[in-house]
Amino acid sequence: MGFSVIGKATPKRDGIEKVTGHTQFLHDLALPRLAHGAILRTSYPHARVRRIDTSAAEALPGVVAVITADRVEQHPFGFAKDHLALKGAAADGGKVRCIRDEVAAVAALTEEIAQEAVRRIRVEYEELPAVFDPESALRPDAPLVHEERGSNLVNLRYQFTHGDVDSALARADVVVEGEYRLNYVSTTCLGTMVAIAAWNPPAGPDASLTMWSTTQVPFLYQRDLAEALGISGDRVRVIQPPVGGNFGRGLDLYPIDIIAALLARHAGRPVKIAFERIEEFIASPTREPCRIHLRTAADREGRLLGRDARVLIDNGAYVSWGSTTPYVMLSTTAGLYRVPAVRFDTTIVYTNNPYSGSMRGYGNLESTFAIEAQMDDLAERLGIDRVEIRRRNATRPGDVNPQGNVITSCAMTECLDAVAREVRPAMLPAPRPGWRRGVGYAAMFHVGGGARVYRSDGCGAILKLDDFGKVSLLTGASEIGQGSDTVLAMIVAEELGVPLARVDVINHDTAVKPWDVGVHASRTTFIAGNAALLAARALRGKLLALAASVMDEREPDLELTGGRVQVKGHPERGMEYERVVRAGHFREGGRTLVAEAFYDPPNEMLSKDLRGNVSATYGFAAQAVVVEVSEATGQVRALKVVSAHDVGRALNPPAAEGQIHGGIHMGLGYALSEELRIENGRVLNPQLMEYALLSAADMPDIVVHLIETVDEAGPFGAKGLGESGVIPVAAAVANAVKDAVGVRLTELPMTPERVFRALAARP
Amino acid sequence: MGFSVIGKATPKRDGIEKVTGHTQFLHDLALPRLAHGAILRTSYPHARVRRIDTSAAEALPGVVAVITADRVEQHPFGFAKDHLALKGAAADGGKVRCIRDEVAAVAALTEEIAQEAVRRIRVEYEELPAVFDPESALRPDAPLVHEERGSNLVNLRYQFTHGDVDSALARADVVVEGEYRLNYVSTTCLGTMVAIAAWNPPAGPDASLTMWSTTQVPFLYQRDLAEALGISGDRVRVIQPPVGGNFGRGLDLYPIDIIAALLARHAGRPVKIAFERIEEFIASPTREPCRIHLRTAADREGRLLGRDARVLIDNGAYVSWGSTTPYVMLSTTAGLYRVPAVRFDTTIVYTNNPYSGSMRGYGNLESTFAIEAQMDDLAERLGIDRVEIRRRNATRPGDVNPQGNVITSCAMTECLDAVAREVRPAMLPAPRPGWRRGVGYAAMFHVGGGARVYRSDGCGAILKLDDFGKVSLLTGASEIGQGSDTVLAMIVAEELGVPLARVDVINHDTAVKPWDVGVHASRTTFIAGNAALLAARALRGKLLALAASVMDEREPDLELTGGRVQVKGHPERGMEYERVVRAGHFREGGRTLVAEAFYDPPNEMLSKDLRGNVSATYGFAAQAVVVEVSEATGQVRALKVVSAHDVGRALNPPAAEGQIHGGIHMGLGYALSEELRIENGRVLNPQLMEYALLSAADMPDIVVHLIETVDEAGPFGAKGLGESGVIPVAAAVANAVKDAVGVRLTELPMTPERVFRALAARP
Repeated sequence: MGFSVIGKATPKRDGIEKVTGHTQFLHDLALPRLAHGAILRTSYPHARVRRIDTSAAEALPGVVAVITADRVEQHPFGFAKDHLALKGAAADGGKVRCIRDEVAAVAALTEEIAQEAVRRIRVEYEELPAVFDPESALRPDAPLVHEERGSNLVNLRYQFTHGDVDSALARADVVVEGEYRLNYVSTTCLGTMVAIAAWNPPAGPDASLTMWSTTQVPFLYQRDLAEALGISGDRVRVIQPPVGGNFGRGLDLYPIDIIAALLARHAGRPVKIAFERIEEFIASPTREPCRIHLRTAADREGRLLGRDARVLIDNGAYVSWGSTTPYVMLSTTAGLYRVPAVRFDTTIVYTNNPYSGSMRGYGNLESTFAIEAQMDDLAERLGIDRVEIRRRNATRPGDVNPQGNVITSCAMTECLDAVAREVRPAMLPAPRPGWRRGVGYAAMFHVGGGARVYRSDGCGAILKLDDFGKVSLLTGASEIGQGSDTVLAMIVAEELGVPLARVDVINHDTAVKPWDVGVHASRTTFIAGNAALLAARALRGKLLALAASVMDEREPDLELTGGRVQVKGHPERGMEYERVVRAGHFREGGRTLVAEAFYDPPNEMLSKDLRGNVSATYGFAAQAVVVEVSEATGQVRALKVVSAHDVGRALNPPAAEGQIHGGIHMGLGYALSEELRIENGRVLNPQLMEYALLSAADMPDIVVHLIETVDEAGPFGAKGLGESGVIPVAAAVANAVKDAVGVRLTELPMTPERVFRALAARP
Repeated sequence: MGFSVIGKATPKRDGIEKVTGHTQFLHDLALPRLAHGAILRTSYPHARVRRIDTSAAEALPGVVAVITADRVEQHPFGFAKDHLALKGAAADGGKVRCIRDEVAAVAALTEEIAQEAVRRIRVEYEELPAVFDPESALRPDAPLVHEERGSNLVNLRYQFTHGDVDSALARADVVVEGEYRLNYVSTTCLGTMVAIAAWNPPAGPDASLTMWSTTQVPFLYQRDLAEALGISGDRVRVIQPPVGGNFGRGLDLYPIDIIAALLARHAGRPVKIAFERIEEFIASPTREPCRIHLRTAADREGRLLGRDARVLIDNGAYVSWGSTTPYVMLSTTAGLYRVPAVRFDTTIVYTNNPYSGSMRGYGNLESTFAIEAQMDDLAERLGIDRVEIRRRNATRPGDVNPQGNVITSCAMTECLDAVAREVRPAMLPAPRPGWRRGVGYAAMFHVGGGARVYRSDGCGAILKLDDFGKVSLLTGASEIGQGSDTVLAMIVAEELGVPLARVDVINHDTAVKPWDVGVHASRTTFIAGNAALLAARALRGKLLALAASVMDEREPDLELTGGRVQVKGHPERGMEYERVVRAGHFREGGRTLVAEAFYDPPNEMLSKDLRGNVSATYGFAAQAVVVEVSEATGQVRALKVVSAHDVGRALNPPAAEGQIHGGIHMGLGYALSEELRIENGRVLNPQLMEYALLSAADMPDIVVHLIETVDEAGPFGAKGLGESGVIPVAAAVANAVKDAVGVRLTELPMTPERVFRALAARP
């Protein structure tokens, strides 16, 4: 099948605009009479608010609204509805539960006045004993984060059993065991969180709310924000201007959104809250910290017999979507490599630490880190080549894994082979003096065809064709920098048979775009792509029917290709498609063409026992990382990352590679340098100078292999890819460090200090 | 038929936002890296540009682009393609032709710098002899405005003949004759013209253009702007933020739009041009000045036998859409009152005056002024009551007029009766000492069901229903303050059977909204309303089909009313429609609902001999104006205006009345005070202090009668209304002045000076 657009390297549509400074980001937006909001956060991670004196703030000229919990109507929100945007209300026990907690907010004519007003608010606290780790929080005498719940145990537990794990452990030739500790990291989006709220009319009980937001799930946000404000969902409109990154940060509703709306209602004018960098580090979601206790059993051939995983999660003060990452941890535990018996259990615990949220990879990095460490450990114990043991256990097409995931297309083995070929040690230069060279491997399993987490996993698409052949795709999908605008336009152009430049993508306004779950689970290309494809097919049908009448030909004889409608086999009997459009428009009974589709994939929600074919297809990848480790300092340098991905089909190869490059950058930071250090509930390093993001100069050579299995359910065969680059990196780096210097790091990041200590502890 | 929404007084949706200062008007918009543009206009109304020295402008820090005709690629635009945005190009003869003409433009970092740079541009002109009135322009030795055309006669002539006019004039019992002079007036929108242009990418031959514009015909603008720039139409996207008035100003493409786009291309960044008030008076379109020579013949019963009209139009330097106003002048001449024989002819002449454009009423005010003067003159000559003579000649349902307009619903007689009842002299208080009281009448005939001026007179509508029952109407229609958002939402709410607050209207972006001709010919409620109605009907059908499956009922048994889907006759067997939507969405094979429609009315384009049923229905009205005239000063005060309108059905009565009130304000200004004074091609009074808009204190009592004929083709029976309030005012005022003091004013406005002179000239 020859494609015109699909598979061709296509620049990102928003690229030039962004690099030349023309993009109007959410940060750049202003509205008439806009006021600026600022938030006062608690001084203590656990305290009772005794009194809030806002009089000095209110007296400041230019202040237009000051709100506290007792002055607003707010409703619990969040995954477990355990959270109020403004804390300190009598009804809420007057409590703050973590250092992020919001106790008051101000709107003023300028940001500076708002900040000054916040500084003038006086709060009297009664500090309370606090808990900052899950074990302490589970002790019988531990202070309770939410007293009314009677326990710090979060009412969420992910338990899964398949096969006889105990028997597998008992009869195994080898069992490896370890505990792995994963710490806080921040998405560190270059564009901080922003919320702009405007009510129309500006006051009154029947006003409707428009939010300009960093959300990446606009329709869920619409629902959740309405609930938090106690209004019906039809009164919330969500607009998504370009954002500077998201990476899962936009999956939850946050206090910033609710507070912006409350301030706007009180001020009687629009209000904008934009986090500064320090506030972003303190108050934006992180990856959820956890400890994974894992045992893996294998026979002497290295074939896996069983896995037993227990995960302990520090939930922080409130339950967010991040608390559901065990869904994906389980998926990896049961699905990364063939494993006949699996047991999985979680303990999720409230503490007075900041709560986490969603972040790219969503639990998969954590469990892959544990699982791939044990694949190497097994290989070492059994004396089997590390790639070979993975090959022997690789998932293959036709497999149905313990959770009931039905594997259709699958190039896991090919991915492993590709990375192994690329890093053959003979091809590598010798290490520098004082440094030791090592290679590590890790594979990846992730959803690739949506993930039915909600009752609908669908997306809508509307296509409108204008007199000049311009096609507007109104898609439910959200562009958060991942390149979806470009790939969706490519899908439409290919399916219609029109030039790519003729396709516009509109996706930023819930009043305009059809429904979509949002950007998560690497689903946009697959789900929104299928919706766009179906709409394009419908539009092509309407256009060919019109052309048959305009051209006086039989419809089945016609095709639309290269922007022309023509008789198959007789290209001379054809005309430009935009002329067909105009002929259909400018005649008696004329009309313009619109088509639409809604695609909901054939996947299942997990049952109560966590079984089900949750995705319409699955993605696979393997990575090899070459590192050098300094035995003198413990420093680890990544020299090369080889990343092979079963992408189904690479619709826009450089965009696919770009996603993988970005993932590798994020994964290396997770592996080597990034940690949001939280002690006694406080963030110690909330600045870019102190939070060690890797720079361009830190990046290794990257080689990407895109392996095309042409998935039968994907649009032109494509599968999801957005998260797969980041997932195996830390695991592969840890295995490379072990290969280089013989020490097994079980905690991230592998800073020089941690590596040095591990080296010093070598027997 | 009981309505839930239709016919109920409904506040304008944009009202509160506008009066509280929250509306983001086009003027308020900014973009990242936005530059500000300014235009240098000619110093002479007719001259040859010898040399333009822009060096001092270019040297000014902050200037980012300076363009002249010789530095840009531009293509002729305008109705006759006789116009280039920037004048002075060698290829164009290097000429400027009127005082509005643009010779250079600058973009700079601030408006102030741009203005200063424009002042620093030095232009050498060779002044040319000029012509400032049509008669002079037609003399054989007259200077030619466009030399290459060989004559100042514009190549547009509107000739129409029906019946034997000469015979009618010969056999008539009475013939009245007069010449009527209509002068320049300005739309005087409170929001001046603005154009913002942004190319993406900011430079390069393949860039696409986004325009934020005051246009009211976005899809024609898209086409015309593309042509003027030499790019294909699919590369132009038009966004229409709220504007402060338009009144026809937005019907043409203007140099401001093209120059903004050219500057943006040269600057490599977005450019905004916003007219200041003086520039708005000089460079925005006016009503086209004309002289109408009219003869009317009648029998002794006052029955019309024939009319003979000759119209001489000062076209100014370029042909705009305004040059086609004779279409409507003819329509009135042949269609206002029954008249069996009609002759109509025009002479349209280039001069070195500013060119005009479209303005509310579009020629109808002018011809109604002439025709209604002669209705009074006939009544006087025949001794017939002035209302009675109109009644005898009134158009009635079933008529087919000389042009072939098919009259269906028509309450012209009822309108006359209604205004006559309301102003019975006995009901009026006595005039003040020194003032004379008079009453004048005039009727009105106008298109009320679209006007097929283009090959399509259609409009599209897309409806999208969300999980909360929110309905988004994506309509082709443009809101320019006339209230279309509100009435379109009402139509959808009524037809669907859902609460009005649940309907959003989206209408500002050509990439989103379906095609529409634009706002003209009072067509939006009728055409876009019908499109919205059809889409709502389609959506209701889909929703009921879904409900049948969700509720397990037979679809024909179901109805959607008051926001509930229920079994007819069994309201207890029902559910909220948004629950049906969610049930349909959140299930296997689920989807969300979208429907669309395109409505093109059953009307005809005029044939070459100017015959055809150009509208799907027609509007009628009558007005009575009570004035007082001071014989000492010539001052005319309007005391009361009674306005009765056949509106088909008043969908939103206060909005209909509001349109009429606004029209009366504009009509009284046209009658009494407003004149853009142009002498020797120069505008003498380009300021609000000098251009005498009527203030609120000048406004008389207004009584509006909305007469409902329930037109069979209209949405819920409605007909167009946007222009009918303004059309008869000046005619009725002139007749009232005649009634009061016995002098016939034949030129507008009827300033104290003109009235005083007429009084002084009385025999």
